[in-house]
Amino acid sequence: MIDIKKYLQEKQALVLKALDDLMLSPEGDFADHVTCMRYSLFVGGKRVRPILCLAAGSCISEDRDIERSLLPVACALECIHTYSLIHDDLPAMDNDDLRRGNPTCHKKFGEAEAILAGDGLLTFAFDLLSDPGHARGLSDSARLAIVHTIARAAGSLGMVGGQALDMDAEGKKITFEQLKTIHRNKTGALITASVLSGAIGARADTRQRQAMRRFGDNIGLAFQIVDDLLDVIASTEELGKTAGSDARNKKATYPAFFGVEKTRKLAEEAVQRSLDALSGFGPSADPLRALAHYIVDRTK
Amino acid sequence: MIDIKKYLQEKQALVLKALDDLMLSPEGDFADHVTCMRYSLFVGGKRVRPILCLAAGSCISEDRDIERSLLPVACALECIHTYSLIHDDLPAMDNDDLRRGNPTCHKKFGEAEAILAGDGLLTFAFDLLSDPGHARGLSDSARLAIVHTIARAAGSLGMVGGQALDMDAEGKKITFEQLKTIHRNKTGALITASVLSGAIGARADTRQRQAMRRFGDNIGLAFQIVDDLLDVIASTEELGKTAGSDARNKKATYPAFFGVEKTRKLAEEAVQRSLDALSGFGPSADPLRALAHYIVDRTK
Repeated sequence: MIDIKKYLQEKQALVLKALDDLMLSPEGDFADHVTCMRYSLFVGGKRVRPILCLAAGSCISEDRDIERSLLPVACALECIHTYSLIHDDLPAMDNDDLRRGNPTCHKKFGEAEAILAGDGLLTFAFDLLSDPGHARGLSDSARLAIVHTIARAAGSLGMVGGQALDMDAEGKKITFEQLKTIHRNKTGALITASVLSGAIGARADTRQRQAMRRFGDNIGLAFQIVDDLLDVIASTEELGKTAGSDARNKKATYPAFFGVEKTRKLAEEAVQRSLDALSGFGPSADPLRALAHYIVDRTK
Repeated sequence: MIDIKKYLQEKQALVLKALDDLMLSPEGDFADHVTCMRYSLFVGGKRVRPILCLAAGSCISEDRDIERSLLPVACALECIHTYSLIHDDLPAMDNDDLRRGNPTCHKKFGEAEAILAGDGLLTFAFDLLSDPGHARGLSDSARLAIVHTIARAAGSLGMVGGQALDMDAEGKKITFEQLKTIHRNKTGALITASVLSGAIGARADTRQRQAMRRFGDNIGLAFQIVDDLLDVIASTEELGKTAGSDARNKKATYPAFFGVEKTRKLAEEAVQRSLDALSGFGPSADPLRALAHYIVDRTK
């Protein structure tokens, strides 16, 4: 097995440098607006989605430059994830004051600026994915397929739709089936798209894409279950956002349905299914395997 | 000259049908969310951006199917325009209750739903632009170039950045240079991108693209000047949104700088420059010419 801590540190540094290089500079006419976007982008974060994209690419392709080719894609995924956090935290949505241990975007810059920072980050993701200056190593067709994979996952039939369902479910009694639908769309879809877009960039064949989709679906599920769990068992300080906010907002969660122990077991089962999906791959999939283990280990 | 009223009616019907065909259906898990998006998309609108895209395509290409090929692009532009209206109308932004003679999205569905409807429409635009099911007639490279043109124009260095500047300028004394920067980005960028994306889809060469950019920049300017003017001289009923809201919100506008008559003249000059940009084209540019005239005629 690889040293996951070291691997994560290395890849986080790589992603952070690429984000800094590729993100707009806080100067000129739009300096204030860009400053607001950069605040949320750089205030913290584990960079899970970009790292999954890079790891999926390296799993499929033996090209030593594949990570470098995928960096704009990885950064686009982080921009979309960050925008979704900014909008989810808004007063009209989850109304959260803290994110990653710091004031949320609207707390720091105001509500209008936060809405626009989110809109700007979402749009900039598609700018990055299609910028002819960032084409290195990826064909136009692969890049267009990545745009579509990410747009579908991030949109109304994925992440945005999932958030709409989540808002609608607040304070209501929902079934476990409904909770799964919310999770699959709100969190799962973009995680699967992160893995898939790395695979597409690495020219994965149909069978490989199917394996990557299955891997992504299951770690996405595990990831959300663990997030639910952490909201119950971790302190605000450890979490970097307000702990217990799900219970406060009367949100349906895995622990609310199954209790802590059973929830932990369900997360482990999802991780196991994600590992099964990688059975056809050799050591090139070790980073993906380590990432899958890392996800449940966050609860220990 | 062509009959612009008839032309607009024909093309509006074409765009409306395509929007209805291509937009998500209000059924299944996301029915409520999709209903909210469809409300704002179909509540009205002159469909100026999609029609400019189609007219630019027909100006460049003799292919009889060019309009059909460009319809997903045209619809994507309307999705982005609609999302921008939804977010601009939010309480944290312009706080408008009326749009196109009807309640704004957040007035009808609530603020969280309106934010998500905007996010969904913006993301769906990129889904449309990259969907392999909508490729007809356009190469992957052309489609990727269109994604980039639109993302750049709609984002932080264009429309979103312009809106951020506009919010920031509210109630402040700004210079005419600053007003022009706001207009160029907030309204002009997406109008130019509408024309350019049609031209790219029609395989315009560099010289043709430059002409289209100049045309787009100038009718975009004319369009915004006229919008400023209408806010002063039209009634709420004629306008379909709350008249006089610029003055109420103490927004800097052309009439505030120059008065009504000089403003009208500046709009006419911009239209004339847009016509000059088309001097290299024959009758295939007549719809674009008629659209340019139509823009200032709205004030008479």
